Amino acid sequence: MPKLDEEANTDASVAPKRGRRLSEDRSDVILSTVLELINEVGYDQLRVQDVADRANVGLSTIYRRWPTKQDVVRAALQCEEAAQKWVTTGDARADVKSTLVKLAENLAGDGGQTVLGLLATMRTDPEVRDLFRETMLDHLHLHLRTLLASELGEDHPDLDLRASAGPAILIYTAAICGKPMDAEAMAERLADLLFAPTPGLG
Amino acid sequence: MPKLDEEANTDASVAPKRGRRLSEDRSDVILSTVLELINEVGYDQLRVQDVADRANVGLSTIYRRWPTKQDVVRAALQCEEAAQKWVTTGDARADVKSTLVKLAENLAGDGGQTVLGLLATMRTDPEVRDLFRETMLDHLHLHLRTLLASELGEDHPDLDLRASAGPAILIYTAAICGKPMDAEAMAERLADLLFAPTPGLG
Repeated sequence: MPKLDEEANTDASVAPKRGRRLSEDRSDVILSTVLELINEVGYDQLRVQDVADRANVGLSTIYRRWPTKQDVVRAALQCEEAAQKWVTTGDARADVKSTLVKLAENLAGDGGQTVLGLLATMRTDPEVRDLFRETMLDHLHLHLRTLLASELGEDHPDLDLRASAGPAILIYTAAICGKPMDAEAMAERLADLLFAPTPGLG
Repeated sequence: MPKLDEEANTDASVAPKRGRRLSEDRSDVILSTVLELINEVGYDQLRVQDVADRANVGLSTIYRRWPTKQDVVRAALQCEEAAQKWVTTGDARADVKSTLVKLAENLAGDGGQTVLGLLATMRTDPEVRDLFRETMLDHLHLHLRTLLASELGEDHPDLDLRASAGPAILIYTAAICGKPMDAEAMAERLADLLFAPTPGLG
């Protein structure tokens, strides 16, 4: 891994601790580079060599840890998902709103194009499809469903429908219809709708 | 157009009226074949020659009327859109529900794959993107918005949000999350949510 060692040594201000710590730092760069490239060119056009070039590491550094392109993409999506750190403050409505604001902000930038790229790949690649559903979508759904249940009640018949509604409307508006969104205002109105009492229920 | 003439002449039970009527009938076959092939292979893989072969017409029959692939696809989408014939009975809630049932049924079959295919193409082809938005999405939005406004009032602040919510949730659930849907039950609950009074508004 000549490139990796060179990189570490150029940073003279930090005593280079070889091994675990160094490669973990490098992993972050690799995984964020994967997400960058998915944003820019889409999963289908993503080449591991391009990741290596941009992250300034050897190709074998990547392949040693993640034997296939799907492995490194899975890791990048899981890392991104974990980095979301959904906040729960005890105020379910505020937490739903802040989750939707974050999602809307992501979709307003490169995120809309990323989502379209992932959707394009889902159509032809069942592995990516399952990956995207299991990392991003399922976790987001569970998070929103739990928040909604804490106020509407665990037996409310529309928990799944309403937990889907936020991401659905944001993805539809930003990525599919291509309309500009004010993240704060949109999330505020969505939260009102999601917590609205259902006529005929309580 | 030898193929076209041969086709017409084989149907001995119908006096073949040449010209406008005949070619209009043939147009329907061509346009429905375009939609079939978009479902099966996606817009990107669609070849006008394949349309001609399956519709059993000469390639020049298609190109004479629609000079480019985009033209014939636009016509097919517009035709499909017009064929929806959104019903308005005066009962806005029932009309919203029936619109959403129809949409859910379409998405449950080949439609989910078609939508993913169109989304995939939207990402790389601005012409198709605008086409899809202008034919399918905008008309559907306007139809739902008008129905919602008739009950919630033209000045309700969430008309656009709620008009988007139905298609958004159905596309998200069926095409993106790949979850099975009961069209009737889903549309019923969605209609309840879309007509729910907003807390703090009347």
